[in-house]
This record gives sequence, structure tokens and C-alpha cells, in this order.
Amino acid sequence: MNKALVGIIMGSDSDLNVMKKVAHILEKFGIRYEINIISAHRTPHLAHDYAVNSANRGLEVIIAGAGGAAHLAGVIAALTPLPVIGVPMQTQSLGGIDSFFFTAQMPAGVPEATMAIGNAGAENAAILAAQILGTKFAEMREKVNAYKSELAEQVKEKNRRLHEKQNNG
Amino acid sequence: MNKALVGIIMGSDSDLNVMKKVAHILEKFGIRYEINIISAHRTPHLAHDYAVNSANRGLEVIIAGAGGAAHLAGVIAALTPLPVIGVPMQTQSLGGIDSFFFTAQMPAGVPEATMAIGNAGAENAAILAAQILGTKFAEMREKVNAYKSELAEQVKEKNRRLHEKQNNG
Amino acid sequence: MNKALVGIIMGSDSDLNVMKKVAHILEKFGIRYEINIISAHRTPHLAHDYAVNSANRGLEVIIAGAGGAAHLAGVIAALTPLPVIGVPMQTQSLGGIDSFFFTAQMPAGVPEATMAIGNAGAENAAILAAQILGTKFAEMREKVNAYKSELAEQVKEKNRRLHEKQNNG
Amino acid sequence: MNKALVGIIMGSDSDLNVMKKVAHILEKFGIRYEINIISAHRTPHLAHDYAVNSANRGLEVIIAGAGGAAHLAGVIAALTPLPVIGVPMQTQSLGGIDSFFFTAQMPAGVPEATMAIGNAGAENAAILAAQILGTKFAEMREKVNAYKSELAEQVKEKNRRLHEKQNNG
Amino acid sequence: MNKALVGIIMGSDSDLNVMKKVAHILEKFGIRYEINIISAHRTPHLAHDYAVNSANRGLEVIIAGAGGAAHLAGVIAALTPLPVIGVPMQTQSLGGIDSFFFTAQMPAGVPEATMAIGNAGAENAAILAAQILGTKFAEMREKVNAYKSELAEQVKEKNRRLHEKQNNG
Amino acid sequence: MNKALVGIIMGSDSDLNVMKKVAHILEKFGIRYEINIISAHRTPHLAHDYAVNSANRGLEVIIAGAGGAAHLAGVIAALTPLPVIGVPMQTQSLGGIDSFFFTAQMPAGVPEATMAIGNAGAENAAILAAQILGTKFAEMREKVNAYKSELAEQVKEKNRRLHEKQNNG
Amino acid sequence: MNKALVGIIMGSDSDLNVMKKVAHILEKFGIRYEINIISAHRTPHLAHDYAVNSANRGLEVIIAGAGGAAHLAGVIAALTPLPVIGVPMQTQSLGGIDSFFFTAQMPAGVPEATMAIGNAGAENAAILAAQILGTKFAEMREKVNAYKSELAEQVKEKNRRLHEKQNNG
Amino acid sequence: MNKALVGIIMGSDSDLNVMKKVAHILEKFGIRYEINIISAHRTPHLAHDYAVNSANRGLEVIIAGAGGAAHLAGVIAALTPLPVIGVPMQTQSLGGIDSFFFTAQMPAGVPEATMAIGNAGAENAAILAAQILGTKFAEMREKVNAYKSELAEQVKEKNRRLHEKQNNG
Repeated sequence: MNKALVGIIMGSDSDLNVMKKVAHILEKFGIRYEINIISAHRTPHLAHDYAVNSANRGLEVIIAGAGGAAHLAGVIAALTPLPVIGVPMQTQSLGGIDSFFFTAQMPAGVPEATMAIGNAGAENAAILAAQILGTKFAEMREKVNAYKSELAEQVKEKNRRLHEKQNNG
Repeated sequence: MNKALVGIIMGSDSDLNVMKKVAHILEKFGIRYEINIISAHRTPHLAHDYAVNSANRGLEVIIAGAGGAAHLAGVIAALTPLPVIGVPMQTQSLGGIDSFFFTAQMPAGVPEATMAIGNAGAENAAILAAQILGTKFAEMREKVNAYKSELAEQVKEKNRRLHEKQNNG
Repeated sequence: MNKALVGIIMGSDSDLNVMKKVAHILEKFGIRYEINIISAHRTPHLAHDYAVNSANRGLEVIIAGAGGAAHLAGVIAALTPLPVIGVPMQTQSLGGIDSFFFTAQMPAGVPEATMAIGNAGAENAAILAAQILGTKFAEMREKVNAYKSELAEQVKEKNRRLHEKQNNG
Repeated sequence: MNKALVGIIMGSDSDLNVMKKVAHILEKFGIRYEINIISAHRTPHLAHDYAVNSANRGLEVIIAGAGGAAHLAGVIAALTPLPVIGVPMQTQSLGGIDSFFFTAQMPAGVPEATMAIGNAGAENAAILAAQILGTKFAEMREKVNAYKSELAEQVKEKNRRLHEKQNNG
Repeated sequence: MNKALVGIIMGSDSDLNVMKKVAHILEKFGIRYEINIISAHRTPHLAHDYAVNSANRGLEVIIAGAGGAAHLAGVIAALTPLPVIGVPMQTQSLGGIDSFFFTAQMPAGVPEATMAIGNAGAENAAILAAQILGTKFAEMREKVNAYKSELAEQVKEKNRRLHEKQNNG
Repeated sequence: MNKALVGIIMGSDSDLNVMKKVAHILEKFGIRYEINIISAHRTPHLAHDYAVNSANRGLEVIIAGAGGAAHLAGVIAALTPLPVIGVPMQTQSLGGIDSFFFTAQMPAGVPEATMAIGNAGAENAAILAAQILGTKFAEMREKVNAYKSELAEQVKEKNRRLHEKQNNG
Repeated sequence: MNKALVGIIMGSDSDLNVMKKVAHILEKFGIRYEINIISAHRTPHLAHDYAVNSANRGLEVIIAGAGGAAHLAGVIAALTPLPVIGVPMQTQSLGGIDSFFFTAQMPAGVPEATMAIGNAGAENAAILAAQILGTKFAEMREKVNAYKSELAEQVKEKNRRLHEKQNNG
Repeated sequence: MNKALVGIIMGSDSDLNVMKKVAHILEKFGIRYEINIISAHRTPHLAHDYAVNSANRGLEVIIAGAGGAAHLAGVIAALTPLPVIGVPMQTQSLGGIDSFFFTAQMPAGVPEATMAIGNAGAENAAILAAQILGTKFAEMREKVNAYKSELAEQVKEKNRRLHEKQNNG
């Protein structure tokens, strides 16, 4: 597993804070990734080249941050046979519903796996990438199960602490 | 490829017309699937068992129709390490925005790949399943590329016919 | 009235501030309650057990905080004959409309009594629980009437103070 | 159980088709009800008297159809200690979102249990009434469980028929 | 003009800041008003009495602040022949769209003159009251014209200052 | 009362069906009106002249149908001291929410009394005009009260018929 | 004026009915145009070539129909220095709001002149193209003025007919 | 190029911060402009005169800030043959969706080129003006291409810096 399996892309460095969350979770799963700022509108030729070469370079999944009019993921999805996951960014004026619609309402023929808006979506994009890679790598499916158990433990721990506080207070 | 790789589920037979579109495209890709009506609210124990056993039975991807309050995909996603794709159904009173929100606003830890509302989403769910399987089966990635070429040909054909009409009219 | 009659549940400790408001009003009515953090997505088996045993343990009403995709109340409602009240949480990206839709648009067969978003909904969930218990315990109905009189007095007092200020200013 | 336990009210006879669904389900549960057209805006004194006398007349639950500006349930809820369930009606111009907001955004102190828009909400209002009465009448809780089993059987039967068709087709 | 001609009412003292804006503009027009906190839900009998007596007490127009579920103006409008103006309050969770719908979507037979949300609506409610009184008092119509001229002068002054800054900068 | 007191205007004859409802109710109140098609965008000079002369010609109230971008009422309101009532028209693409926003979000200084969308709004615009004229003509206030009684009788009659049907059925 | 000055493009022949309206108005203005079906998602290379060559081929304005996820206009706008006008199409599930957002929320650097949804937007796209060409061709500005006079005459004619009907009826 | 080619207008000095962004970008393109505060509602006669004289004074494009009910651009567009670009302002209560609808939903016959809400829209309005002037002045089209190259360089630079940080961190 030496080459990047997941390509993280975003149209602007203002999306970097949220997209680093994707990178962080991928690292927890031990999945190699690469990360790039590419703009569908400002660097259309770079976006084109990135998409056309993505599969040949060994990528298995692409995760695109989708802020504003969010064409990036669509442009990429049009030119690659890889699964493309879109993470809608929170927007200032419309709260992210616009990014959400852009990402999810893709026309028939060009699917884009849309996540929740913002941080939760970023975390889930990484988990979905792990689940997709689980189709090929059996150990990845076990890691997904382990991650779920960890989340369950966190909830139980919070409940224990709540009850302790009640008993002591 | 004798066992089902994709499990199609829906909460009510009123979603059957849209979800058959998923089945139809999967057949075009030569992907074996199974199809079931399971309700998260009315048959919660069946839903639980379906999710827990899905990976062991050989399924690689689950596609859930999500009409109304759309808990089905969430309940399944909580209990399986497989990627879960949600297809929001058009609803009578709110036009499908409600299904859309249910499906995409999943909390961190339980991703659900949300598609567009209705038929376009159903077609794209099948294509995304093919893209995911392409991670494991190289020939599936070629089929996705072939499907894209076919769609391109259809557009070009429509443009040719439009110009013929203009020249003749 | 020694056992808990009302079960307060929420999916995350981030809902605790709002749900404590429920507890606070229940205390004013002298209604015993228990409070738990249970996640439909992260601890699905705990959620299942909680719902199945709720009626046998003597609970009469369940009040569920519903933040984000809000499946918790739906999962519980599917498995208990008790009335379930949902309090939609304010959400960062969509202001709580998403929680609201999740909670109220339950399919036929699995009702969920939806309250207003946030604090007002939390207070009202407790009052509705008191009204429901008033069906069984006559003194509870009198307490509801007393609470209403108290609210009326508060409004009248505020009006008196407004007029005093006007006369003095 | 000779007197009406549930009062069904609506502001206009245009809501009658949906509210008859409430009556129909109540009959299945063997719950006696009464039904009235009362307008908060056009017959405000009647609405006032209905609310003030509701508990004394033996009603335990009030179910109000809420079409348009939907003040009826709020006016009633202000004047009775009984639980009030609101069923938002589909509206022509805004699809029912307006009714929905009216019903659920009740201020602190005056809860209204909001159901889904239209027919599903009507069915659920009746079931919630049965669940509330289950607090007082043990046999009602068993009827709710039986109703749930019936719904589960319907889903299983639909799944059986789907598979039969597939095997035969 | 010794008695109050305009009655300002609101359901909660949290609306006082916005509704004082109404009072302030009425004072500029020299229109006498009274101001009260009355709750349709918490003091329904007071609201009833206020509405029934409003015309006899000499009021000509009622201006109601409409925060949250905003039943106050509707309850008043049902019981008075006077024109009722509603000012939708900004709400925390839904930004005021809910108040707006509550206020404007009144059923046929019970009009409510809806203003813009918040401060602009408060100012306009006072001006509309002046315009309505202009039907009876000729001098009020002249005051409305004078107010319009004053607003025009303010715009021209701002434009002059903008150009001065440009020329100097 | 020989001259028109109310001016009904609309931007297009497609609004005529709804605006005739205004005329119909005004006739019931015995209020003389005039009706005109004037476009703020296509006949801006006519709109200007209409507004500037409205008060001098003896009009007391203007009722404007507001379909689409709905500038008509705003243009008129900018140039007349008369109260202007706006009736938002149902629109094909956005269901009338756009008309609704246009009409109600008027800036401070130029109020527009917004009614509900479509027919209910048209009826209410006429009643509000009658209420405004009631400030000047005492008999108009009595007519408004009589109209309210008539509406109450209609509700009671519908309730009687519902109970007759139940008793006979 | 022998070469096409305006390029009309759309992603699917389902947009043809609306976009023919654009062509029809351009013909009224005597503006030569060409019309093509090009898909940003299905024929991305054609879309790229169309945009890159548009200015060299003599086009001055591009008008793009924007149905569904509406990336076409954005992809074109990224690669041409020409003004791009977007006409949002009505969509089945969300009524066109999605197309509307896609078209107007373009990021800084890539403007797209958004029109109203559907037919009105199509007509206006053609007029805006004429207004833009009016910058270069003086006679086009006169044609725009003539078109406006024609629209004014239509409104006046409708008003005349309305008054005739009233006088005769 | 000594006279102003672009007229920037806005209804209130509260829009000045955003509209200065338009001026700033126009300066980068070397396009002369003038800037004015004119209110459609408060100074309707000034607005009328501005529109009627705009073309004769040598303006080629008008850019109008559209805050709140945003009639300014519509009033201007009704009276000029020039292309009018609208920049919807962010609004406090509804986040700018209201401005957006006002601006874009213009009726057939009076187009208004709508930009994105707020700052991105302001920048794009200036670029669109440059693109429109490119129809007349060939050097302007080259400047638009140069501006696009500059934007591309900025994106590439950000990507370089991101990778440097990763390599060093």
C-alpha cells in the first residue's frame, strides 16, 4: 500500500480546514491519500487532467470538497470511472443548502456520493472510502467494524459519566 | 459471480417502481442483486437481521430506497460495514426535500452515499455500485467506461437529429 | 410514584443542555424520570433493548432529543407501545429544519409527537408528558392547570411592569 | 367506555376527508370519539367553550386538523389541560409547510403534538391517542402492540408477493 | 385626539425592543397609542376581552407583534372589526420565516396586514397606521407625504456625502 | 359614495381571475371600486401617473395583485400616501413564495399590507379595505361585523350538516 | 451579420421546448444564432472544445439552458471570455430552485447572468443578448426600445379590453 | 474612454461595502464608472430620471445592488435599453434568498442579469460588465482572458504552498 488510494481535492484553500478532517480519519484507517487544490472554474485544464489520469495513477476513490457552486466534483465525475464522494461545504449566505443541492442533484449517468454538510460529512466521506476499499481489502472491513465499536464505547462512556454526575450531584 | 453482490431494499412497495430502475441498470452491468421490502419501523427485527448478516452473505453494497422519514438506510448503516447508498424518494407533501435531508444528514460515523431524488438517483445508485465493485473487479471499471461512452453517443445522436430537423425545417 | 414514569433519551451529550430543560420542568411537576445517552447509530443494540423493555420497566412516556438525522426516536417508536415525544434540536448548518422534518414526517403506523425546535420544545415536551399522565393521575391535570395559571400571572406581571415604566418614564 | 374519549375538531369541512381517517383508525381501536367543525377565526366563542368544557365532558385527548393558518389547535390548547394532537393539512400554495410550522412552533407552555402532513399524520394521530389512553387503560396498550404486529405482517406479505413475482417472472 | 387611536400589543416582553420602534414612529406622527403585553396562549381571556372592547374604547388600528407561533394577532382579528397589522418577529431557529407565514397566511375572512420581518416591519406598521388614519384625518395624509419627503432628503444627503468623499479621496 | 374609493390594479390579465374576487367582495360591502391593468415594467409611466394622482382622484385604498417579481405595488406605494394592500399571486415555478417575499419584504418607509397567497388573500384584501374605510364611515364597521356573523353562521351550518349525516349514516 | 452571434446550448433535448423560446425571440430581433445539445457530464470533451472555440468562431454571447445540476454553463464560462447567460429549467422534484441555485451561485471569477426559471427566463435571455449586442450595434438598442414599446402597447390594449368588457357587462 | 461606461447604483449606503468591490474590480480592468445612491422607493423621481438618461449619457452597462425588496434594478430596467446586472445583498432575516428571488424572477420583457449573493456576486458583476464591453472593445476581451490566467495562477500557487507545507510538516 505505497501509492495513494484516495485523492482528496478542493476548489479553494478556504475548504482546507474541513477537508483535513477527511485526511485525519483516512490516516486512522491507515489509508494513503494525496491532497490537491484544483479549481473547476479557474484551472479547468488541471481539473480535466486530474480526472482523466486518476484511475491510471492508482487512485481508487476521489473525495471532493464542494463549496459554493461546487462544479469540481461534477467535472471530475464526468471524466473518471472511479467512485466520487462529495462533501458539501457550509456557505455563508445559504448555510450550505446550495452546496448540498449542487452535489446531490447530479443528472443520471454521473453519480456523486453526497455526504452531510461540513465536518460530519468530512468524517463520513473518509469512512465511506474505507468501506469502498473494504470491497477489495478484507482487513479494511475489519477496521470499519473496529471503528464502529470505538464509537459505541464513546457513547457508553458518556452515558456512564452522565449517571455518575447525577448520582454525585 | 453467482451470489448477489448488491442488496436492494425499500420500506414499502410504493417505492418499487423507482427501485426497479436500480435493478434494471445493475442487470445492464451484469451485476447480480437481490431485492427486498423491509421496514425499519414495521419490521424492525427483520431490518436488524438483514443488516447484521449482509456482509457474511456476500453482499458488497446495499442500496436503500428512502421514502418519507427514511430511517431504513440509517438503521442498516448502523449495523453493517458495507457501503450503503440511499435513493431519496419523491414525497407527496414536501416534494422529496424531506427524504433528501433524512438521507444526507447522517451523523458522523455512519455515512450514507446520497443520490439525487427519484429516477436519476436510482440510475446513479446502480452506477455508483458498479464503480465501487470496480475497486475489486477490473472488468467492472471498463463497463463503467463503456456505459459513459454510450451516454456520450446518445447526446451526440440527439444533437445530430436536432440539426437535421433545423436543416430540413 | 417511586419508579421513573418518563424516560428522557438523547443520542449525544451535545443535546444535554436542552434536554436538561425537560428534566427541570418534570421536576416542577413532581414526575420521576430517568435520563440516558443512547445512539441509534453507534449503540444500536442498546437502543433496541431500551425500547423493548421500556413499558415493562414501568415507563409511561419517552421523550427523545432529536438532533441531526434523528433516527433515535424512530428506532424507539418502532419497538414500544408507549407514546414517544420528539424534541428537534437546533442544527448548525440548517437551523433545525432538518431535525424538525426527521421528527415529524414519521410514516403511518409509528407516530412521534413533535415539539417546537430547541428550548421551547423541551419545555413543552415535559408539559405534554404531564398532560398524558393526567389521563391516569387526576392530580397531574390539576398541576397542569396550576402551571397555566402561573404562566398567565407572569404575563400579567410583565404588563404591569411595562406600564409602571411608561408612567414613570 | 360509553362517552367520547377523543374529540376530533377541524376548522373547515374541506379537512373532513383527512380527518375521517382519524375516526376510522379510532374505530379500529374501539375508541369512542366525537367530531366537530369549529373555527378559531369565524366561531371564536364556540372554540372557547369547546376548549373550556372539554375535560369536564370526559374527553381525554383532542385531535385538531390544522389547515392554513391553523390557529384552532393553539386556541384550544391554551384553554384545556388535555393533550392536543395537531394534524397539519396539505395546503395548495405552500404544500403544507405553512400548516406544519404553525402547528409545531408553539411557544413554551402550550404544547401541541405535531404529526406528519396529511393522511399519514391522520393515521398516526389516532395511534398516538391510543398510546396515550394506554397510560390509563391496559388493554389499549395491547391493542397498540397488536396493531404493530398487523403492520409487520403486511410488510412481510408484500415481500413474499414481490419474491413470488420475481420467481414466476 | 386625546384617546389612544392605535393599540400596540405583543405576546412577550422579548418583542418589546422591536415594538418600541412602532411607538417611536407613531410619536413622530403625533398619533396617540397604548401598549400592552397580552398572550393569546397564556392569558387567553385577557386577549379575548382586549379584542372585543377595542373598537368601543376608541381604537382605530391594532398593531400586533408576531413572534413564534404568532396566534395573538389572529385571535384579536377574529374578534374585532378594526384593521389589524402584524409585525413578524425574527426567530432564533428559523430566522422569522415561521412568524412571517403565521402572520400572512390567515384564512379568508380574517385579514391581517403583514409587514416585513423585524425593524423595517415595525417602522412600516406605524406608517401604515398613519396612512389608514389618513382616511379619516386629512392632516395625517399630509404628514405621510412630509415623512416621505424627509426620507428622500436623507437619500440625497447620503449620495452627496458619497460624492464628496470620492472627490476628496 | 359615487366615486371609486378603492383602486384595484394588476400587472397582467393573467391575475384577473383572482383579482375579480376582490371586486366581488367589495361589491358585497357596497364599496365602489375601479380596476386597471398597469405594468410597473412595461408601462412604467402609466404606473407613475396612476400613483401620483390616486389620492387626488378620491381613492382611499389601493389593492395590487402581485404576481412574479411584483414590483407594481412597490412602485405605487413609493408615490402615494394611501394605504396599499398587496395580494401575492400563486406562481408556477415557486408556488408563490417568490411573490410573497416580494410583497412583504418592503424596506422601511414604504409599507405594503401583505395578504395570504391567492384567493384567500384576495378576499381578505377586500375585507381589510372595508376595515380601513370603517375608520371614516361608521356604517362600514357594522358591515364588517355583519360579514363576520355571516361567516360564523356558515361554519355552524356545516357542523349541523356533518352531525345530521353522522346520525343518519 | 452572416455568422451566428449567439450560441444557444442545452444539456438535454428535454430542455428544447424552453430554449426554442430563446431562438424565437432572437429571430424577432434579427440576431443570427446556432443551437446545440452538449452535455458537460456526458460529452465533456465536446463541451470543452465548444467553449474554447466560441469567441474565435465569432460568437458574442452564449445562452445555456440549465436543468438539474446545471454544470454546463459553468464549464463553458470557465473556458470563454464571452458573457454567458443561464436559463434555469423547471425541475420535477424541486420545482427549479435547484437549477436556480446552481446557476446563480457561481464563485467569484466566473460570472453567469442568471434569468428567471423557465419561459420568462428564456424570453429575457434573448432580450439580454440583444441588449449586450446593443453595446456594439447601435441599431440593436433601437430594436430593444421598440420591443419595450410593443410590450407597453400590449398592456394598454389588455386594459382597454378589460374596461370594454366592464362597460358592456 | 473618458466618460463613465458603467453606472453603479444602490438603494442605501449600507450596500456600499459590497458595491465598492464592484468598483475595485472595474478599476483593475481600467473601466471608468460612476457610483450613486438612489432609492426606488424614497427617491422615485431620481430613479426615473437616472434610468431614462442612462444610455444618452454614454453608459453601456448598469450594475445595481439589490438589498431587501430590491425594486431599484427593476425600476431602472423598465426604463433603459441597457443591460442591467443585479447583485443580491445578504439580508439579516432571510440570508439573502429574498434579494435573490427579487432580482432573478423578473417578468418576461425586463431581463436582469442576476449574480451570486454578496461579495462573489459583486466581483462577478464587474467581470460580466467587462465581458459585455468586450463585445465592443476587443482589448477588453483580452483583459478578461488575462484576469482568468491570473486567477489560475493564484490557485496553482495555493496548491504549491499546500504541498510545501505537507513536505515540511
